Amino acid sequence: MTADLLITGISQLVTAKGSGARHGLAMRDLHMMERAAIAICNGRIVWIGKERDWNGEALASVDVGNRAVVPGLIDPHTHAVWAGDRLDDFDARTSGETYEAILAAGGGIRRTIRATAAATKDELVSIAEPRIHALLRSGATTIEVKSGYGFTPAVEIAMLEVIQALDASIPARLLPTLLIHIPPVDTADRIGYIAEMCTELIPEVARRKLATAVDVFVEREAWHVDEAALLLQSAKQHGLAVKLHTEQFQRIGGLELGLRIGALSVDHLEACGPDQLAMLAASSTIATILPGVSLHLGIPAAPGRQLVDAGAAVAVGTDLNPGSSPLFSAATALALAARLNGLTAQEALVAGTVNAACALGLEDAGRLEMGLQADFLVLEGSDWRELVYTLGTNPVREVWIRGERLPA
Amino acid sequence: MTADLLITGISQLVTAKGSGARHGLAMRDLHMMERAAIAICNGRIVWIGKERDWNGEALASVDVGNRAVVPGLIDPHTHAVWAGDRLDDFDARTSGETYEAILAAGGGIRRTIRATAAATKDELVSIAEPRIHALLRSGATTIEVKSGYGFTPAVEIAMLEVIQALDASIPARLLPTLLIHIPPVDTADRIGYIAEMCTELIPEVARRKLATAVDVFVEREAWHVDEAALLLQSAKQHGLAVKLHTEQFQRIGGLELGLRIGALSVDHLEACGPDQLAMLAASSTIATILPGVSLHLGIPAAPGRQLVDAGAAVAVGTDLNPGSSPLFSAATALALAARLNGLTAQEALVAGTVNAACALGLEDAGRLEMGLQADFLVLEGSDWRELVYTLGTNPVREVWIRGERLPA
Ligand SMILES: [Zn+2]
Ligand SMILES: [Zn+2]
Repeated sequence: MTADLLITGISQLVTAKGSGARHGLAMRDLHMMERAAIAICNGRIVWIGKERDWNGEALASVDVGNRAVVPGLIDPHTHAVWAGDRLDDFDARTSGETYEAILAAGGGIRRTIRATAAATKDELVSIAEPRIHALLRSGATTIEVKSGYGFTPAVEIAMLEVIQALDASIPARLLPTLLIHIPPVDTADRIGYIAEMCTELIPEVARRKLATAVDVFVEREAWHVDEAALLLQSAKQHGLAVKLHTEQFQRIGGLELGLRIGALSVDHLEACGPDQLAMLAASSTIATILPGVSLHLGIPAAPGRQLVDAGAAVAVGTDLNPGSSPLFSAATALALAARLNGLTAQEALVAGTVNAACALGLEDAGRLEMGLQADFLVLEGSDWRELVYTLGTNPVREVWIRGERLPA
Repeated sequence: MTADLLITGISQLVTAKGSGARHGLAMRDLHMMERAAIAICNGRIVWIGKERDWNGEALASVDVGNRAVVPGLIDPHTHAVWAGDRLDDFDARTSGETYEAILAAGGGIRRTIRATAAATKDELVSIAEPRIHALLRSGATTIEVKSGYGFTPAVEIAMLEVIQALDASIPARLLPTLLIHIPPVDTADRIGYIAEMCTELIPEVARRKLATAVDVFVEREAWHVDEAALLLQSAKQHGLAVKLHTEQFQRIGGLELGLRIGALSVDHLEACGPDQLAMLAASSTIATILPGVSLHLGIPAAPGRQLVDAGAAVAVGTDLNPGSSPLFSAATALALAARLNGLTAQEALVAGTVNAACALGLEDAGRLEMGLQADFLVLEGSDWRELVYTLGTNPVREVWIRGERLPA
């Protein structure tokens, strides 16, 4: 065999095995190989094994210097496109203001919606670009990005077009999700708004392939379960995958809706109950937890340990957004999941790779295996656990996508 | 006036005023100037004001591009010199092992002491260098570094010599502290060990100026208050400043000892009581809190909000160490203090600059003022609050020390 490129000097190569987190992969079942090598052709892995067992030819080789290699991370939940900032809200909150008082003073999510609606698409692209680059530097080679600050169909479409433009200009793979976030201020018209979403926005998004999934925020202040059911059924009818923000501040039942409707993932789960853990474990829906929110808002953390122990497939995301999780690192999300949600380093890696891929409906990402795209990270250290252990500095030295190293 | 260098394009210049955190500076009393400029001669600030008010000459000028500028951060508490790693301990702990079981299995701090004793000084320098560089990139221009993994006087001296060597090779200013960490395993000989410290190690360290302060770890598993009193009195007799690790896991009385003996700072304070807040407020001792420990170990956070409200002068440090705080960023320490200890962004900046300087006995650092050394940070954004708000990526774009920009 003649490879384009041989990667050597790998102290530890660590990856989940099989595509099957959704199908019951034990969350600590990692495969670790010491002194490994990876051969790459046309951006794909063509051979993987012990360095001493390689007996092919390679047109080029790169020695990574006795460092650990893991799969590129998958960030399954971000709101990376927004305009304006929430620094006044941050000040108010750390000064003891309540959420309600901030909202009443014109802050909160509606501040972001106003600013985003006022920005042009070009402005949104250039504002969001450094955020996506920060996630990429932190190891995320595949990143989900939601709309949802648009409110009106036109601005939602514009946000999805911005994500499309970012996907074309940035080496990471971006997966766009249409997020139907909160009802318009004029709550008298909720059902009219839902009808507009179901008959106009969702069909257009599906037809133009502007998103692969639809997400609905189920919460007292947002959409009720019955409303979410209408929106998500419409999404399914138009061939889109579905997911939900749910059980964040209270047990609200979006989880059960998600399982009933076959959601790829239910996200947040800070307030989920013991019986819901078992339901999740019996399903093929991924439980996506978002520790950045717990750190930033000081709310209880999702029961990651209990989810894993119950047998659920857990994924971890940054939830990057200006109001509840200004967390610009996929690696730090894993580090926080170990501290705040009780995951081990092994579980955190599975949660940030194959399970996160499953949360996006991807069966071909998040692991290092012959035939798959060569998306991987070279860490700073020789022990891969530093990826999860390290706080405050980036444990990722090099990000490789399709067999090419990104410029530092 | 002709300056060597004029810094322009500063969207906001933010600094504490006066040298006086120890003497009662209100912790939100920041000075903010928009569209500011700084003139520098021989590494010192010779003029500071509104850009439009500058009417001198400058041999060179740098436009920082409408970005915020704050003083270089001061990290008043690190254990940045160690050998080996604590990844097995991290695995054991996230897998549910108790602290006692880890210690019994040969882990915990004694693992680090063994590895550090086995390393040469050159090895320790090259292992610690990237850690100090990480702190520097995160904005720390002055960094305290403790010994304390040495155990024997010879290794303690070697650790202080390593810190001296690092200080010479790295642009940050390092302040070495002799830390008398834990008693030897053979506890029968505690008093003999203390005598050795008081008659040999402390005098030698003072004579050779290897440290500016002595720190004692007061805890059930470490030194008792009476023992710490002997050690710290000896330090004072030899002209060294004193500080303590205390009130971490329980109220133990090191705080009262610290105030009685005139400690520069008492550090940790997770378990300090309401009446102790008032004692601190009435003293000139700094209350140094260490949020990385709370995040990493999941222990309660120190009552930062209550300390500030009581009138104490609070500083924030990383406590960078392998066992309880693998936190490699002074900026992230401030970000965590806002989330875990309830500080506002304003208070966090004061805590990470002038108050941290006072915790090290420095009256001439941690603020931007005519006559002081030009140590400052150019942030990524135009609003300085991003320094405290941002999680997971470095909000610091450029680090300037003595009027020179460090290479990226
Ligand atoms: Zn979200
Ligand atoms: Zn310490």
